[in-house]
Amino acid sequence: MPFVRIDVFNATPVEDRKAIADAVYEAMRETISIPEGDRFIIVSAHDKDAMFVDPHFQGMNRTERYVAIEIRLNQGRTPEMKQALYKRVAERVHEAVGIATDDVMILLTECAQVDWSFGKGEAQFILHPPAWVK
Amino acid sequence: MPFVRIDVFNATPVEDRKAIADAVYEAMRETISIPEGDRFIIVSAHDKDAMFVDPHFQGMNRTERYVAIEIRLNQGRTPEMKQALYKRVAERVHEAVGIATDDVMILLTECAQVDWSFGKGEAQFILHPPAWVK
Amino acid sequence: MPFVRIDVFNATPVEDRKAIADAVYEAMRETISIPEGDRFIIVSAHDKDAMFVDPHFQGMNRTERYVAIEIRLNQGRTPEMKQALYKRVAERVHEAVGIATDDVMILLTECAQVDWSFGKGEAQFILHPPAWVK
Repeated sequence: MPFVRIDVFNATPVEDRKAIADAVYEAMRETISIPEGDRFIIVSAHDKDAMFVDPHFQGMNRTERYVAIEIRLNQGRTPEMKQALYKRVAERVHEAVGIATDDVMILLTECAQVDWSFGKGEAQFILHPPAWVK
Repeated sequence: MPFVRIDVFNATPVEDRKAIADAVYEAMRETISIPEGDRFIIVSAHDKDAMFVDPHFQGMNRTERYVAIEIRLNQGRTPEMKQALYKRVAERVHEAVGIATDDVMILLTECAQVDWSFGKGEAQFILHPPAWVK
Repeated sequence: MPFVRIDVFNATPVEDRKAIADAVYEAMRETISIPEGDRFIIVSAHDKDAMFVDPHFQGMNRTERYVAIEIRLNQGRTPEMKQALYKRVAERVHEAVGIATDDVMILLTECAQVDWSFGKGEAQFILHPPAWVK
């Protein structure tokens, strides 16, 4: 259900990009009840003069290892679930590749169940709502 | 009104990318009442190690021809219109470039009429609502 | 609070891309009450055969200097604030790099305060709502 866009700087090694994607997927599995295999993640890398990131906004110490993680998901998660997600994503990204949690920014965008088609031109959540749909 | 982002793998030929964009535009014309010329579509291509796609989630058989189509549009389309859109996009993409409908993923994000400026620093849908605005 | 994606054609000089990002940030400061340092902006450049833009939709005269500016921000701005934002972004982009306001397209996407984590795995707007949060 989630569709994830991750943005990093070019300096981020390719193997770290995959590890970050894996970390996000595992954190979503642990905190917001997504099913196994629900893994659609695009990682884009940018030059230093193409991604502008304030180093200190909201009291952080951001570096060239900054990661922006934009997660599009079905509406209905509680604030508590979202907060658990943020915590676990930051922890797992840090554990996986050593990026400080100050460098992990996360954005959620909610949509409705009818707003997805996973293939075959069908709206799967409308035609055959799975038990785990929130 | 729609603003479309299409993501494909690098292996997708450039001429196919344009054909996919055309297919999406024509399908929107047919199913969700967008006016002629309302065509703003960005196609981004990714390395295999930058776009992670589950091959079988929701019963599909996804390949390196996978296409993610993110459509941002005004709120108000009915579930039936959205389902007609999914069907027609998948059909047209398949007809245009032979991509299997299993490989066509579609995501909608809704916004309000006041959330667009098409130029001149104005909110066209607020200042001069056209008859076709939903 | 805003997270901004800017899309331009490859022909746009790199120094203009930064100037456009600065223009958008300053316009947001002037019209929608964002705090100093709230500056997270990604600029992506595209080939002519990867970004499809109607030249005349809604009465504009769009060129290869077209800029799409997608701003994700907290919900709650009034239509008047949004209209002021569009006007000021178009003016500032024009002043900064000479791009005609016909070429400046702006899209807003709203989210809730709980939908952001600026780092440390925390939802800052929930834990410590700053005075300026709308």
